[in-house]
Amino acid sequence: MPLLTRIRGPRDLDRLTLEELDRLAEEIRTFLVEAVSKTGGHLGPNLGVVELTLALHRVFESPRDKVLWDTGHQSYVHKLLTGRQDFSRLKMKGGLSGYPSQAESEHDVIENSHASTVLGWADGLAKANQLRGTGDHVVAVIGDGALTGGMAWEALNNIADARDRPLVIVVNDNERSYSPTIGGLANHLATLRTTDGYERFLTRTKDLLERTPVVGRPLYDTLHGAKKGLKDFIAPQGMFEDLGLKYVGPIDGHDIEALESALTRAKGFGGPVIVHCLTEKGRGYQPALADEADRFHAVGKIHPDTGLPIASSGADWTSVFGEEMVRLGEEREDVVAITAAMLQPVGLDRFAKRFPDRVYDVGIAEQHGAVSAAGLAHGGVHPVFAVYATFLNRAFDQVLMDVALHKCGVTFVLDRAGITGTDGASHNGMWDMSILQVVPGLRLAAPRDADQVRAQLREAVEVTDAPTVVRFSKGAVGPAVPAVGRVGGMDVLREPGTGTPDVLLVSVGALAPMCLEIAGLLEKQGISTTVVDPRWVKPVDEAMAPLAEKHRVVVTVEDNSRVGGVGSTIAQTLRDAGVDLPLRDFGIPPRFLDHASRAEVMAEIGLTAPDIARQVTGLVAKLDGGYARSAAGSVEPARD
Amino acid sequence: MPLLTRIRGPRDLDRLTLEELDRLAEEIRTFLVEAVSKTGGHLGPNLGVVELTLALHRVFESPRDKVLWDTGHQSYVHKLLTGRQDFSRLKMKGGLSGYPSQAESEHDVIENSHASTVLGWADGLAKANQLRGTGDHVVAVIGDGALTGGMAWEALNNIADARDRPLVIVVNDNERSYSPTIGGLANHLATLRTTDGYERFLTRTKDLLERTPVVGRPLYDTLHGAKKGLKDFIAPQGMFEDLGLKYVGPIDGHDIEALESALTRAKGFGGPVIVHCLTEKGRGYQPALADEADRFHAVGKIHPDTGLPIASSGADWTSVFGEEMVRLGEEREDVVAITAAMLQPVGLDRFAKRFPDRVYDVGIAEQHGAVSAAGLAHGGVHPVFAVYATFLNRAFDQVLMDVALHKCGVTFVLDRAGITGTDGASHNGMWDMSILQVVPGLRLAAPRDADQVRAQLREAVEVTDAPTVVRFSKGAVGPAVPAVGRVGGMDVLREPGTGTPDVLLVSVGALAPMCLEIAGLLEKQGISTTVVDPRWVKPVDEAMAPLAEKHRVVVTVEDNSRVGGVGSTIAQTLRDAGVDLPLRDFGIPPRFLDHASRAEVMAEIGLTAPDIARQVTGLVAKLDGGYARSAAGSVEPARD
Repeated sequence: MPLLTRIRGPRDLDRLTLEELDRLAEEIRTFLVEAVSKTGGHLGPNLGVVELTLALHRVFESPRDKVLWDTGHQSYVHKLLTGRQDFSRLKMKGGLSGYPSQAESEHDVIENSHASTVLGWADGLAKANQLRGTGDHVVAVIGDGALTGGMAWEALNNIADARDRPLVIVVNDNERSYSPTIGGLANHLATLRTTDGYERFLTRTKDLLERTPVVGRPLYDTLHGAKKGLKDFIAPQGMFEDLGLKYVGPIDGHDIEALESALTRAKGFGGPVIVHCLTEKGRGYQPALADEADRFHAVGKIHPDTGLPIASSGADWTSVFGEEMVRLGEEREDVVAITAAMLQPVGLDRFAKRFPDRVYDVGIAEQHGAVSAAGLAHGGVHPVFAVYATFLNRAFDQVLMDVALHKCGVTFVLDRAGITGTDGASHNGMWDMSILQVVPGLRLAAPRDADQVRAQLREAVEVTDAPTVVRFSKGAVGPAVPAVGRVGGMDVLREPGTGTPDVLLVSVGALAPMCLEIAGLLEKQGISTTVVDPRWVKPVDEAMAPLAEKHRVVVTVEDNSRVGGVGSTIAQTLRDAGVDLPLRDFGIPPRFLDHASRAEVMAEIGLTAPDIARQVTGLVAKLDGGYARSAAGSVEPARD
Repeated sequence: MPLLTRIRGPRDLDRLTLEELDRLAEEIRTFLVEAVSKTGGHLGPNLGVVELTLALHRVFESPRDKVLWDTGHQSYVHKLLTGRQDFSRLKMKGGLSGYPSQAESEHDVIENSHASTVLGWADGLAKANQLRGTGDHVVAVIGDGALTGGMAWEALNNIADARDRPLVIVVNDNERSYSPTIGGLANHLATLRTTDGYERFLTRTKDLLERTPVVGRPLYDTLHGAKKGLKDFIAPQGMFEDLGLKYVGPIDGHDIEALESALTRAKGFGGPVIVHCLTEKGRGYQPALADEADRFHAVGKIHPDTGLPIASSGADWTSVFGEEMVRLGEEREDVVAITAAMLQPVGLDRFAKRFPDRVYDVGIAEQHGAVSAAGLAHGGVHPVFAVYATFLNRAFDQVLMDVALHKCGVTFVLDRAGITGTDGASHNGMWDMSILQVVPGLRLAAPRDADQVRAQLREAVEVTDAPTVVRFSKGAVGPAVPAVGRVGGMDVLREPGTGTPDVLLVSVGALAPMCLEIAGLLEKQGISTTVVDPRWVKPVDEAMAPLAEKHRVVVTVEDNSRVGGVGSTIAQTLRDAGVDLPLRDFGIPPRFLDHASRAEVMAEIGLTAPDIARQVTGLVAKLDGGYARSAAGSVEPARD
């Protein structure tokens, strides 16, 4: 990598020739395929933005100018050009984040993985520049898919309103931000792709003139130089024009010269302008290009030559759900599915193949997913909206005010709930069991194994007058955890040993094996323990308080924020019932979690069987008068 | 009201002539001014949609066809035409809701007051109609202002994608859904307003032909009849065309004949179509038209002739905030303000007048308000985003993932927090202190009086590395509640009487006077009580656990959902500190609250001094061994 290793920062790009830049682009592609094959990561999107990133850092002066990335998984090339070339621990503890990170570099701003945010950030930064008179530039890169998100629209509408506030919006149009982009906007972009912009005209002229090399090249350079920066050549077009946004494009997103020309003109324009770049997701890597589904959007460890996965795990939560949905669809004509641009990742691809008319991909538009589900339910069908747990936050108001207030039978299936780990702070699904607690009427299931996913999904779609939620973890599903008894609607996973039971241990979802391990450790200390899985964690089962009362201590364990979570709600239920027992609630502390493996994160926050068993032992000893206060203080507090 | 009183349902409109319809429109306006003058309510928006509502109910067959209203405060005329003409208790307990209500009528669907939802509902309902093959129609009425909301965009993008799914979107364009609509979209709509559509052509032809009355009228009728329903006359236009939506308009929204013609054509089109209606907010009522700010968007009780308010209250929370913002703005150049189409209602009008370049009205776009605030903060200024508490739900993900994750110093000022009452379930600000608990680093203030609003706003804008929230109630602010002491950062409002203190009563925000009353009642029972106002309810003050430990019981009282609220978090903090005292948390039960006055709602849910004092007395008696369990059961449980 003779060129790449010499790039320590963006300014090192300045002295490279066009030919060297093209070579550098090839080096970067080779680097990405090799590096990401070893670690896993977002391969396809980054292969698509190599030339674009080079051009951006040639034209803009980061970090004074802000180069902003929407859904920062497309920032690997940006990392390589801003002093971060050790990808050996990408997304691993202590290694590079899979997203931009202010802690990593002054060139990074937006850290989160939720799409469609960049234009809002850019608008705010541009306003601050204007207020403070800095004269610095802001450039925002957003995929065509992310433009379907409502936040993008809200921002565009505001950006267009201030015609004298400079802001460059690069639309990275690969027709498939996650999968083929849907909707009216996608159709419009498709029309724009075929139009002839200034850069395309330039390229043709260049090709023509270069056939007569003696006069051609100088003539071309003169022509190009004369036009560069002229506002006249920024032609408004289509709906962007209607909104009042200038439009440059379409640009070949793999032609560095054309990109630089367009970006330079946009930078000099003095107002908001859209630069429409056409890129190819997975560019330059045959296995990615051959993958029709999502062009290697995100991969695990793969063979770099074939693109085939190295390790394949067993059954995962997503597939269990996806398969059951197909069976449900066969049994019930009124069951339909909704996804927000995540058909395959949430396991609905099989359902879509079997029932193409009964699946709705709404684009990156979780709000619309939820509201249109309310409409569907009111219209007499039962929608199942499958979405990553962390992305449901986008639709909180709609779950509350549209689905729940109107008593609509809508089922939300939350995939990747709990600690997901390597994708960092914003990808953990650690908020749902807290914020959904306030939603009147909503019922929330946390299945502990594959059987329960199937059973509880079926229970959920039977509910016609309230929202239901089924939430499960990312990745491989463990072996079945059988119930040994039933109390109310709750499964008893373990009866206490002999004598008066000391501890009622409430196990939530996939943490059942860990809770059984805790119980084993406690029994070794002579602390007899009942383990119960409520199955439906909201509402709290009516049998909970009477069951708790038979014990001396209640302990809850959940894969969710401790604050306002299942433990907190059970504590309140016990208070309301006048059962004033000591209770300890274990879960995720209220802070953002750095990227690391799920196991590493859980160890770090003390969500392990030995840690919890030790604390519960201390609490019981305190009750026995053994020693005071030892049970407190070692729980990571709810304060932040 | 000879015509209006004969209208029992939409079909009674069928036999009316155009002349009678015009007379009916006048009757309705007279009725609205008189009725709403007495009760208060949304006057301006309803005066603007009289003819539109008549035309909708003539062309569509509700309830089989669904006539959907965005931000349902524009549904008064719809209520009058669907069997609801007793407006004497509008928005009062037992009277008509200020919004559509499924409990009131089979003609109502969307009940909530949050804007921009209607297109999502309509998309879902249209999909259900298609799946079930009903052949019924869906028509959605949305204001131009609500189109700035991201949800509207997400829906439009999806609706445009299914060209064979019938759906009529009526854009009710009054250029000022709340106040003059802002943004690029508004500019585009303004352009469309001036174009010549089919109906405008018809009207001109009619005017011309009617000057030669003998042949004119029949000729016109023939002409009109021949064209009616022809798809050719649905002309695509502007950005809606770019998205793939057919466009009809612009239509004079006060010309019933033109409206019926346009709606009939749209209904017969067989795909998604936008009907662009130009209406005048406050139409026909001079005091409203003369009100440049918001055309009598919502009024209290007024004199029907002059439009002047009958009762004027003293200082209100909003003004206290608004005045302090002006002072802050004078002291600190870096303080800027953000509103989501609510400049005047949130009290930022004075600030805007004084510092026009430092206030941003982002339109009905709470998500953008929050994200652009993150950008502004990153850019070195301190934004204060003032928004109704209930509307912040829309921006939960942005508060969490953009502001908090990036440690941005943004202040959110939540107006109308707690029980607002008469506007019904969706306007109560009863969720914020629950969902915001999970946001790492966020600090939340609940000022108890005007002095505290001023002081805590100043404390909030000093924070540069985390979101801060200041939340206060609707309406008049009470007299100052002085502190008699200080523990940590908390104000002691009342020291306990003689002897060992029994109860620590934690008072949140505006409930301080009620808490002092509770303490008085308890002391009469011989129960000595400390009343403390934490001021900052998140994070829980470090002095809370040591203070609690000096008491036998902790009681919390808040104007927010009980579930996951301040009381719940204090309970968790005490558990974490090993302080296992009995605690009772009083607040709003987790259900939707019917419209009624604030006092009526609070009485109904038992959030009154006597109710709470009685329960606390019972709990203390139980601890004294007086009688068992009486303290439990009378709290409205957290279960729902």
